[in-house]
Amino acid sequence: MAKKNASRDRERWQVPVGGKGFALKDRDPGDKPFSSGDKEADKRRVAELSTEIDALQDIFWAERRLGLLVLLQGTDTAGKDGTIRAVFKETSPLGVRTQGWKAPTELERSHDYLWRIHAMMPAAGEFMIHNRSHYEDVLVPVVNGWIDGKTTRQRYRQINDFERMLSENGTVIMKFMLHISKDKQRERLQERVDDPTKHWKFSLDDLEVRKQWPDYQRAYQDLLRATSTEWAPWTVVPADSKTHRNLMIATLVRDRLQSLKLRYPPDDPRLKGLVVQ
Amino acid sequence: MAKKNASRDRERWQVPVGGKGFALKDRDPGDKPFSSGDKEADKRRVAELSTEIDALQDIFWAERRLGLLVLLQGTDTAGKDGTIRAVFKETSPLGVRTQGWKAPTELERSHDYLWRIHAMMPAAGEFMIHNRSHYEDVLVPVVNGWIDGKTTRQRYRQINDFERMLSENGTVIMKFMLHISKDKQRERLQERVDDPTKHWKFSLDDLEVRKQWPDYQRAYQDLLRATSTEWAPWTVVPADSKTHRNLMIATLVRDRLQSLKLRYPPDDPRLKGLVVQ
Repeated sequence: MAKKNASRDRERWQVPVGGKGFALKDRDPGDKPFSSGDKEADKRRVAELSTEIDALQDIFWAERRLGLLVLLQGTDTAGKDGTIRAVFKETSPLGVRTQGWKAPTELERSHDYLWRIHAMMPAAGEFMIHNRSHYEDVLVPVVNGWIDGKTTRQRYRQINDFERMLSENGTVIMKFMLHISKDKQRERLQERVDDPTKHWKFSLDDLEVRKQWPDYQRAYQDLLRATSTEWAPWTVVPADSKTHRNLMIATLVRDRLQSLKLRYPPDDPRLKGLVVQ
Repeated sequence: MAKKNASRDRERWQVPVGGKGFALKDRDPGDKPFSSGDKEADKRRVAELSTEIDALQDIFWAERRLGLLVLLQGTDTAGKDGTIRAVFKETSPLGVRTQGWKAPTELERSHDYLWRIHAMMPAAGEFMIHNRSHYEDVLVPVVNGWIDGKTTRQRYRQINDFERMLSENGTVIMKFMLHISKDKQRERLQERVDDPTKHWKFSLDDLEVRKQWPDYQRAYQDLLRATSTEWAPWTVVPADSKTHRNLMIATLVRDRLQSLKLRYPPDDPRLKGLVVQ
């Protein structure tokens, strides 16, 4: 019975297709639905899961049937870099690539906003982790009023079409929104200010963006509602606890990979009994 | 009155959105709806139009508001290379690029079929000419039975979505199917066999593809019906006459460019009266 409730609680974090009834404010960034209640045990579990994910990547790579896109969104300090480090630390760089997205270059801006994104999609056999993504194009311009509601809705539709095409052609898409509280962000930004080895992570612009907190939360809620689809659902990850964040994402990635019925390619019958001279 | 009939006749060659009532066999490859009736005059007109297109490209480039995709499809010997040479021969290579598509490489096959296509879309200010295109992915695999009807229809939808996204983000799309008769193809293939300077254009495989002529005509008809959209309509170009083919495409490209209300960027007021020392 306890397990059943836990399972229901876990599912709550997936944004329903169509977004009906979903409100970001009803999701507590301090929640820990995947935790055992023992932090050290949770940390060990993350390490075990990252080893399992590496083993699954081996088969994924050998099979070369599908690609995996793991997309991480979240405000500054939400923990995107830390997640990648924890969840994929055991995975061979042969099979996993990371792509971080910044403001577009002049060349990128001379194309549609999905142009640079499409170029960096995983090949068959690859895991591709996107640190930020095309969802920035329905966040920054929306919050700053550079595009109107009509264009925003057009982009939601374009993104859904794009991801559907990718999915139909063999890309498995997992989208995670790392959800932290405004207080937790203050704490983490202050750490960056106070610690000289973290200064490189900090920019005064981050404080300007922080002032727009409610606008970003609203833009996040709108995009989560509009772009959680059967082929590319969103999961909101309560991320005030780093350990819980890692545990939740590692568990969901491992589970998804297990569901894909990965198999090494069939044996070549000529190999049976072959002795290499 | 004569002019009005000519205009109606010209519009006949655009495939209606949704494809209703369109049959490729009702379109005569030997027809010349754009011809003046005087071949030499038509040739001079093509040269004039290519100069006009160059002048329009200058503004298109300066303005950098839109991109232009001209997509050429047709069976072997339909005249794709010749069209590019005739219509864009006056346009500066600064502003026009050509991309020919062959069978996908191993890397390309490890991604969705639109991956390599998206990468080669025009930047703002550019003309991009595609010699063959993503439509090969609903021709070769269809005729050879490598994909089933469901996948084919899925691709039609994916292509329509993709082109709509491009169009909404500033790419003007013109799609031409160069329509020749089976007899004209025989004649042109024979020329390639008989003329040693044309051997490089010929492959024995072309004869195998020629045997599938009715299947290809059928696959063309199906895709023309399914993918002629408001944002990216198909035009069937009767192409047994090279001069007529060039004249028709040059006219339509020139007309489309004129319809875009291209303008040089607004003057910088600081330039008024400025004397360079």
